Amino acid sequence: MPTIRVVAHIKAQPDQAEKLKGLLTAQVAPTRSEDGCISYVLMQNNSDPADFVFVEEWRDLNALKAHIKSPHIQQGREARAALLGGEPDIRLYTQIA
Amino acid sequence: MPTIRVVAHIKAQPDQAEKLKGLLTAQVAPTRSEDGCISYVLMQNNSDPADFVFVEEWRDLNALKAHIKSPHIQQGREARAALLGGEPDIRLYTQIA
Repeated sequence: MPTIRVVAHIKAQPDQAEKLKGLLTAQVAPTRSEDGCISYVLMQNNSDPADFVFVEEWRDLNALKAHIKSPHIQQGREARAALLGGEPDIRLYTQIA
Repeated sequence: MPTIRVVAHIKAQPDQAEKLKGLLTAQVAPTRSEDGCISYVLMQNNSDPADFVFVEEWRDLNALKAHIKSPHIQQGREARAALLGGEPDIRLYTQIA
């Protein structure tokens, strides 16, 4: 079975970018220690500091589902809700090349 | 200096997904052999076969600029133009965590 890839774009309101950056950064270490997390990278757009993206790789769908239910993700989602500049764009992919 | 990260979403017209997939796949091997290419991964959306994304890492901006000017990218861009379902969304990022 191929791994599950995730590309998750998360946008802050322009004046909340630093605060959102702190919240998103805080979820990286606990996520990387989750079972089934192969890779979890947080990036910030070079020309728009309010534009963040996670690029993730998970062993399988069950590992990703457990991640979504994890306390750090659930709490992070509530904490960031008021900072967002739009609905997060989260898509699941399979590597083809 | 941090590396340059790229997330490039490329969408096909629904009936051209297979053809676009072939063109995008063909540019992976020559790109990976370019100087300064650290990583170059092509993915297809699990719920929308017309939705592709490249996740890339480059040593620096000069390496990325040389890539954009390379024959396989220039020719690929022309070849795929008629297959696209919209303007590609190509953004440059820096890893922050």
